[in-house]
Amino acid sequence: MIKAAILGHGTVGSGVYEVFEMNADKIACVAGEPVEIKYVLDLRDFSSLSYGHKFVSDFAVIENDPEVTVVAEVMGGVGAAYEFTRRCLLAGKSVCTSNKELVATRGDELLKIAEEKGVNYMFEASVGGGIPIIRPMLRCLAANEFNEICGILNGTTNYILTQMIHNGVTFADALRQAQLSGYAEKDPTADIEGHDACRKICILSNLAFGDKFDPDQVSCEGISGVTLEDVASAEKLGCVIKLIGRAVRNEDGTAYAYVAPHLIPKENLLASVEDVFNAIMINGNATGDVMFYGKGAGKLATASAVAADMLDCIEHAGHRLRISWGNGSKNLLRPIDTLQSAWYVRFRGDRKTIEAMLPVESLAEPTEGMLIARTSKLPTVDMEKKIARLGECGEVCAAMRIL
Amino acid sequence: MIKAAILGHGTVGSGVYEVFEMNADKIACVAGEPVEIKYVLDLRDFSSLSYGHKFVSDFAVIENDPEVTVVAEVMGGVGAAYEFTRRCLLAGKSVCTSNKELVATRGDELLKIAEEKGVNYMFEASVGGGIPIIRPMLRCLAANEFNEICGILNGTTNYILTQMIHNGVTFADALRQAQLSGYAEKDPTADIEGHDACRKICILSNLAFGDKFDPDQVSCEGISGVTLEDVASAEKLGCVIKLIGRAVRNEDGTAYAYVAPHLIPKENLLASVEDVFNAIMINGNATGDVMFYGKGAGKLATASAVAADMLDCIEHAGHRLRISWGNGSKNLLRPIDTLQSAWYVRFRGDRKTIEAMLPVESLAEPTEGMLIARTSKLPTVDMEKKIARLGECGEVCAAMRIL
Repeated sequence: MIKAAILGHGTVGSGVYEVFEMNADKIACVAGEPVEIKYVLDLRDFSSLSYGHKFVSDFAVIENDPEVTVVAEVMGGVGAAYEFTRRCLLAGKSVCTSNKELVATRGDELLKIAEEKGVNYMFEASVGGGIPIIRPMLRCLAANEFNEICGILNGTTNYILTQMIHNGVTFADALRQAQLSGYAEKDPTADIEGHDACRKICILSNLAFGDKFDPDQVSCEGISGVTLEDVASAEKLGCVIKLIGRAVRNEDGTAYAYVAPHLIPKENLLASVEDVFNAIMINGNATGDVMFYGKGAGKLATASAVAADMLDCIEHAGHRLRISWGNGSKNLLRPIDTLQSAWYVRFRGDRKTIEAMLPVESLAEPTEGMLIARTSKLPTVDMEKKIARLGECGEVCAAMRIL
Repeated sequence: MIKAAILGHGTVGSGVYEVFEMNADKIACVAGEPVEIKYVLDLRDFSSLSYGHKFVSDFAVIENDPEVTVVAEVMGGVGAAYEFTRRCLLAGKSVCTSNKELVATRGDELLKIAEEKGVNYMFEASVGGGIPIIRPMLRCLAANEFNEICGILNGTTNYILTQMIHNGVTFADALRQAQLSGYAEKDPTADIEGHDACRKICILSNLAFGDKFDPDQVSCEGISGVTLEDVASAEKLGCVIKLIGRAVRNEDGTAYAYVAPHLIPKENLLASVEDVFNAIMINGNATGDVMFYGKGAGKLATASAVAADMLDCIEHAGHRLRISWGNGSKNLLRPIDTLQSAWYVRFRGDRKTIEAMLPVESLAEPTEGMLIARTSKLPTVDMEKKIARLGECGEVCAAMRIL
């Protein structure tokens, strides 16, 4: 009998327990023997649960129990979660997590401790919830150099945008609806301002390029500025608006990484990814484009990814999986100033002005005085300057990259 | 320096060599040291190649060289490929392959030998070419019971159907085009009659359900009977036609597995998978639907999947990955007689007749006397009987499942 522990009994934590109960037979088959969740760490009172006797409030009980070899950290945050993860690893226990904030900000350090102690720190669930992505990148695409990663990494914002696109709901109403449905938190900032997607594109970039991409350094724009007018304009250009996290490798080994709303042409598969679903497109230099799609969040989906990591640790006990990245000292992140993109611009003003100031490829005037332009590709910094100057001759209502 | 060998220098074999050359730095980084392809086995003369000196025509050279620890079998077929794979495994060498025919027909036996010898037999490239699918199923979804697998598993037929759907090309012309583009072989039977997709759905079923699904026992229908009239009728029903390999688990642990053309509603993501691309949707009882998408064939894509397996063998030398399935004695395959599906039927005859004989949910008459029906769900065997009787009262031009 293998013994495990769960740190935190929130949505994902209770889901991990449920997965181990629900699929006990399958899990025993994969692990080679049954797996028992010996402890659940939570300060709240869960004594009425059928497994209430497993709850402990003192982390040291788990830390000091040599029987426990693998631990799920599903508390979230970077305070206690960091401290407990570190202590578990130091105590020779493998740790599996869905905590993207912790992986993105201190993953390098925790992976180093794991390496020194010969245990594993795994985080399949930290990107894309239940969608397999970390392991396929590391293993199945191991013989590729990664050229690009481009994904819909946040389910909440994708739900909101889907409501705006298909039901003509305003951003504010769609957000309220997402909160009522449990898809958005009371304080939705991390989702709608793109911080959650930013942590995820950083984790994927760390893995793809081998050095730390700091979320604080990565350009990050959310969707709170997207309007129904933009949704309608995108439709006219044969596109839908999606919040995209993207990393693009340059020939010199540096990479762009950023989060921003984009116009996605409808023939791109990412345009068909709706509601709370996520999808991540990866381009490898041998394999071309591959895409991974599924529910990016949700109790059991995320929990089953944590559980699968735990099973991997159990099956490979005593054998470390080679995962690591540098501490950021290689400075691989290139500012997006020089990133070339085609742009969508919505401008209230004169047709001749916008044609003179932007490299316009197509121009429409759906209502008198409101112009929708699509530009050829140009560097971000040039576009920003042009937009500033354009703003002096009229009103720039919106400017977004086209994928 | 790690030494490897490649059996067969066809499209995939030469691709494997190319991937090891092209991404040598990345590969050395993953493997922990450089990997050298010491031998390439092929009977043909490749002496003019820069690596012509590595070619051998005698398999025993590779078999008897203890330096070679991992071998790529990319010859295809079940004759010499089987014999050489068996002998490599018996000689304590891990084998990685893209040979779906061999994996589907003798995988159980070869995995058993690998287990006995403490080496690996891996076949990520056998399904979906460069798309990660085997490993994600085995590892990332390890904590799930699999409810359903449903995929576009053959690029050639998807290319042909895409030509028919978007360009109004007949089946015969689209096939000719596919052959000219190198997407279809001179003898296209294995692709267009669904045998290739059948082997792949069998491999996925073996992995998902743990016992051998014999391709010879699995119901298999190709696309040679699909006409432009069917394509147009599908469009009227809001669908596109795709060749689908599908496996569905029943509550008693048995499973349906079959290959057949289906009408796919356009809101289903599989409907947007075009040209030579493949996509595989998997439903796990915890994770819900996840989908994997990419090029299902092609030299470098497939080769990079073989190379990734080889890297996994190298990194886990001396440590076996738990992959196996039974020899088929559990008889998990359930005949599709009882499988419930909604159907599309194209019928030349009387409206009252078809309404009386089928559980029609919607009926259209695009041209006088030609009826397009969509039925409610009913078991295959009932449908077959009804179709036979309907054929006595008019002409049943087509009948296909709706996904």
